[in-house]
Amino acid sequence: MFINLDFESDEPIYLQLVHQIIEGIARRDLRPGEALPSVRSLASDIGINLHTVNKAYQHLKQDGFILIHRQKGVVINPDGVPKADASHKSQLEKNLRPLIAESICRDISEEEFLMLCKSLYKTYQGGRS
Amino acid sequence: MFINLDFESDEPIYLQLVHQIIEGIARRDLRPGEALPSVRSLASDIGINLHTVNKAYQHLKQDGFILIHRQKGVVINPDGVPKADASHKSQLEKNLRPLIAESICRDISEEEFLMLCKSLYKTYQGGRS
Repeated sequence: MFINLDFESDEPIYLQLVHQIIEGIARRDLRPGEALPSVRSLASDIGINLHTVNKAYQHLKQDGFILIHRQKGVVINPDGVPKADASHKSQLEKNLRPLIAESICRDISEEEFLMLCKSLYKTYQGGRS
Repeated sequence: MFINLDFESDEPIYLQLVHQIIEGIARRDLRPGEALPSVRSLASDIGINLHTVNKAYQHLKQDGFILIHRQKGVVINPDGVPKADASHKSQLEKNLRPLIAESICRDISEEEFLMLCKSLYKTYQGGRS
């Protein structure tokens, strides 16, 4: 796996793990049905606590990104990630609000903000039809 | 003040407070030099712990949104919020990455995402020249 943690960051380790797996799915490095390492093996590979990996996996499971089978282990949701519904969209808006408010305070124009979003969309979807 | 906290939310109370003050500045409800309530008075007004308000104010001070004077009390930075530099922009990108990655996984198109950002910019800047 492509996990790259920043132990100096303010962002909790479990959330960094969650985000990197979601980014892997967005980038299609991780495909539906693909197996992820067990909690124990991932924890030992990247040198973090079992509970941290477990917390990340539980979070990803709850949000529909992965399934955790007793026998088959951990896999990327074979049916694909559930599409955004009204509650996801309202959560997205809630998460964007402070980023946009701070950008306005710091004189980042709407154009510059939108350019950044477009370039990030391209990062993940580059070359995808 | 217009503070409206959600005690059921996963977002820590101090961060909700930080975000709402930043949103107030973006919306120009809070103007440079304008006084904010003291830690003690705000804590008692909204019924939260002194330490929570203090944590929020320290956070806002560190990021240049407010000044804390021993005599004059707490004021919105009279010189305006410092403009975004390279490190703010890289932090913004870091914060946007997981939102965009999740949106891609959940089939929110780039167009829909950009429309949402535009409408939020409008929310804050509505009627501003």
